[in-house]
Amino acid sequence: MAEKNLRIGLLCDFYGKLLTEKQLAAITMYYDDDLSLAEIAQHTKITRQGVRDAIKRGEAILLEFEEKLGLAERFERLSEEGQRIKQCAEDILAHSSRGAVNTEIMSLAQEIISLTEHIED
Amino acid sequence: MAEKNLRIGLLCDFYGKLLTEKQLAAITMYYDDDLSLAEIAQHTKITRQGVRDAIKRGEAILLEFEEKLGLAERFERLSEEGQRIKQCAEDILAHSSRGAVNTEIMSLAQEIISLTEHIED
Repeated sequence: MAEKNLRIGLLCDFYGKLLTEKQLAAITMYYDDDLSLAEIAQHTKITRQGVRDAIKRGEAILLEFEEKLGLAERFERLSEEGQRIKQCAEDILAHSSRGAVNTEIMSLAQEIISLTEHIED
Repeated sequence: MAEKNLRIGLLCDFYGKLLTEKQLAAITMYYDDDLSLAEIAQHTKITRQGVRDAIKRGEAILLEFEEKLGLAERFERLSEEGQRIKQCAEDILAHSSRGAVNTEIMSLAQEIISLTEHIED
């Protein structure tokens, strides 16, 4: 098995419901619970090769959906915006430089709104 | 054809890339350009029944993905949060009640961050 792609866990949060039950279980145990293929095989009563295939196929599906839709990446960007807005709000409380902070809040909010609008091609 | 489901246009922005070229073209013409089935048939050189089938099948795919993933709904909620944050920032500039507004900004930012984290089952 190649090195774990840590992005798979994130993609699973978004597109996991598109996987089969077997694929989702194998990927969750492998990425979230950090079990080995042999351990997963034992838990799921399928062969080690079957587990490997389920993970590989599931990964391919998740990557394919993100490649097409890019929604996980948009949520990551939104999360960064949210963090920065929170920081700005804290700065307003702590300092008197409200003008500049407020301008940044408005600009970040506008970015969030834009990110939720139409997906660009 | 039943009444137009205006939500389809929104879902198409999120999941449109999962449709076939024919389905996407028919749905875009029907919902975004507001063409009739006959007009779409003329443009696409497929039969009126073929157009109807492509729209129906495409709609079903879009609704099925949103039913499973709910990402369009999450983006809509994020957009509302963004609008409210922007309003808060404007209020900070206009009034002196910064404490309350700042608290709301922090709480909204926290909501945005939460919305971008794990999808609840």
